[in-house]
Amino acid sequence: MNSTSVLLALCAAGLCWGQAPADCKPNPLNVPEAKYPCTFPDNRVMYRVIAPNAQSVRVGNLNLTKGPDDVWSGTTAQPAVEGFHYYGVNIDGATVADPSTRTYFGSGWWNAGIEIPAPDQEFYQPKEVPRGRVSEQWYFSKVTGKWRRCFVYTPPGYDGGKNKYPVFYLLHGWGEDETAWFNQGRVDYIMDNLIADKKAKPMIIVMDNLNAVKPGDSATIFAGRGLVPDPSDHPAPPPAARGGAVGPGRGPGGAPAGQAGGRGGRGMLSNSAFSEMMLTDLIPMIERTYRALPGAATRAMAGLSMGGMQTHTTTMANLDKFAYIGLFSGGNIPLAEIKDPAAFKKQVKAVFFGNGQLENSAPSKAAVEELKNAGINAFFYESPRTAHEFLTWRRCLHEFAPLLFK
Amino acid sequence: MNSTSVLLALCAAGLCWGQAPADCKPNPLNVPEAKYPCTFPDNRVMYRVIAPNAQSVRVGNLNLTKGPDDVWSGTTAQPAVEGFHYYGVNIDGATVADPSTRTYFGSGWWNAGIEIPAPDQEFYQPKEVPRGRVSEQWYFSKVTGKWRRCFVYTPPGYDGGKNKYPVFYLLHGWGEDETAWFNQGRVDYIMDNLIADKKAKPMIIVMDNLNAVKPGDSATIFAGRGLVPDPSDHPAPPPAARGGAVGPGRGPGGAPAGQAGGRGGRGMLSNSAFSEMMLTDLIPMIERTYRALPGAATRAMAGLSMGGMQTHTTTMANLDKFAYIGLFSGGNIPLAEIKDPAAFKKQVKAVFFGNGQLENSAPSKAAVEELKNAGINAFFYESPRTAHEFLTWRRCLHEFAPLLFK
Repeated sequence: MNSTSVLLALCAAGLCWGQAPADCKPNPLNVPEAKYPCTFPDNRVMYRVIAPNAQSVRVGNLNLTKGPDDVWSGTTAQPAVEGFHYYGVNIDGATVADPSTRTYFGSGWWNAGIEIPAPDQEFYQPKEVPRGRVSEQWYFSKVTGKWRRCFVYTPPGYDGGKNKYPVFYLLHGWGEDETAWFNQGRVDYIMDNLIADKKAKPMIIVMDNLNAVKPGDSATIFAGRGLVPDPSDHPAPPPAARGGAVGPGRGPGGAPAGQAGGRGGRGMLSNSAFSEMMLTDLIPMIERTYRALPGAATRAMAGLSMGGMQTHTTTMANLDKFAYIGLFSGGNIPLAEIKDPAAFKKQVKAVFFGNGQLENSAPSKAAVEELKNAGINAFFYESPRTAHEFLTWRRCLHEFAPLLFK
Repeated sequence: MNSTSVLLALCAAGLCWGQAPADCKPNPLNVPEAKYPCTFPDNRVMYRVIAPNAQSVRVGNLNLTKGPDDVWSGTTAQPAVEGFHYYGVNIDGATVADPSTRTYFGSGWWNAGIEIPAPDQEFYQPKEVPRGRVSEQWYFSKVTGKWRRCFVYTPPGYDGGKNKYPVFYLLHGWGEDETAWFNQGRVDYIMDNLIADKKAKPMIIVMDNLNAVKPGDSATIFAGRGLVPDPSDHPAPPPAARGGAVGPGRGPGGAPAGQAGGRGGRGMLSNSAFSEMMLTDLIPMIERTYRALPGAATRAMAGLSMGGMQTHTTTMANLDKFAYIGLFSGGNIPLAEIKDPAAFKKQVKAVFFGNGQLENSAPSKAAVEELKNAGINAFFYESPRTAHEFLTWRRCLHEFAPLLFK
């Protein structure tokens, strides 16, 4: 074996430290000037992490290898799925954000983010078209007794104009917050492009936080990732240990810390406090503060995953207030749930269920067929090649927005 | 020694895993439900990090200790300086953000953030007062040939009103970006509170990015933290090694990876491309897009650190365009630099130099005395107990804004 073939073999094993990967393009979400992670033309990803004294560095299931330059490197054997992904780097058991990328709030913490090129990526890239803008909007909620924050997209032409616009309320998923749709979701680029192409009407989009708790209600619907446990979270040591000196052994608790907290959801699937807050506080604030058209015919609601379930709950309990309903990887509304299909057909101008191809499409597809047969204007969309992740939801937005306010 | 005194001794050493630190208040920048890091009443900080297989976990100079619950903990021996601080956790040589906190862009990466209570913290807390809002604003720059992003604070009453407002341009420091002033700096809370108290006039505040490079100009003024080096950044291995098999040894490069990249600045102190871009693209865009008053008398500029140096450069070259100048830990303007003090006195309504008490105040103090003796309306401010950090700059903003547009 000569040195070239050794090098090629090392490269194939993700140990290609001797060569500059000239065809590996930096992840567009990297911090300025950071070259890694990078993506090869076939969408395999190379990670590089500085951790000189670590015993083990992993990204998901990919074990990185320490090179002679003391940098840990690895390239995925398979192409990554196109679109946006959260990821963490595991350094000797600690899951942390890769310091080379921008961070994104998901699963209850600020993850690293990576963007894999997709064949249809043009629709969510910034272009030289008139631009809307996203604003941070604070408001006081009488229902929760607290100040809340949402983000509001106003379309090109809003500033300096006089027109009133329809309003689309758009919710994030579990473990995310009101920053998700414009950071991970690229609402502003998608809408600017659709509006420039005259495929969607100019509209206001409100991105709120689906967590809402009434005073005195101890329920939390937030469920974070492996939160660091408090020492008092663990059971007290047995009485024998208590009486003696603090010696070796596992001490209080004893659960492996790597499992503590976990990533499981403690979230409720939907939340009546949110619906009440939205109708009592959010919608009136938006209609008072922005040039917003009031009334159901100019009001839409959608959400992704847990936000889709919340949309389901809120809209079905208030069909006189929303003419458009979108559930993105958030289940579906079967005909059997609709008490008065004729009234529903009259009130709801479009109902949309979308999900990724790698999720289970059958129930939503079947529900749409049933609704259509009942004369309801229902749509199903399946995002090619994607799972329960943000490219699915960007594409759902891109399909749903053109149906609105026609 | 009984078990209680052992426990107390362990607690004093930062190994207090057997007790819930009931008086340790979670850092307000923690992700939802995260209890750590937390701050004791005397401003000592306790950190807890899950890293079960690590050999060493540090926060700055503080070595954390692995507890029997496999969580690394440590409490600082000394109180932390009041205000906002960036920090990283070092896990076996890898410097990463603490996954328990929100992240903030500084030194070229998304750091963890911690907020230590300050006696005067009320001025930068959200209150039940009318709120302005911060918007993300994109614009195309003819000077750089690229789309750029700034954030714009509009005061309470802007939406739905007809008034025009003066404009204050406010720059971040080295390694930061256009997100710094409203995330780390809390511009919106500070201004809402000042305006509610009638201590500052309602104004528009524009937070841009001080990095600007003209096409064909290879200069970069961005300088990130320890970027992961490219394998090709290292010198090639010596010919002997090249011809042979890849054996043990240091291989290409051989520099310890922990030092690669470093944190040193490569930044230029100021940037004429920024001034040109600001005058050609940014100011006209703001005056076209917002209800902004034009002209020097209603235009202010300030910046922190490197942004202060940029403010110095931009305003001194364009004294006919700015009536208010603020340098926050960004040097000063000595009388000797002013060619025509009488004209300066007429054009510049207020000039302000501020810094932290733990920085060197003498040069700015002396410069202000000189300027005052020449009849110029000059101000010096020293932030008590703070260094080159964001509480210094929040306080500078809080002192400078009331001087504007009177």
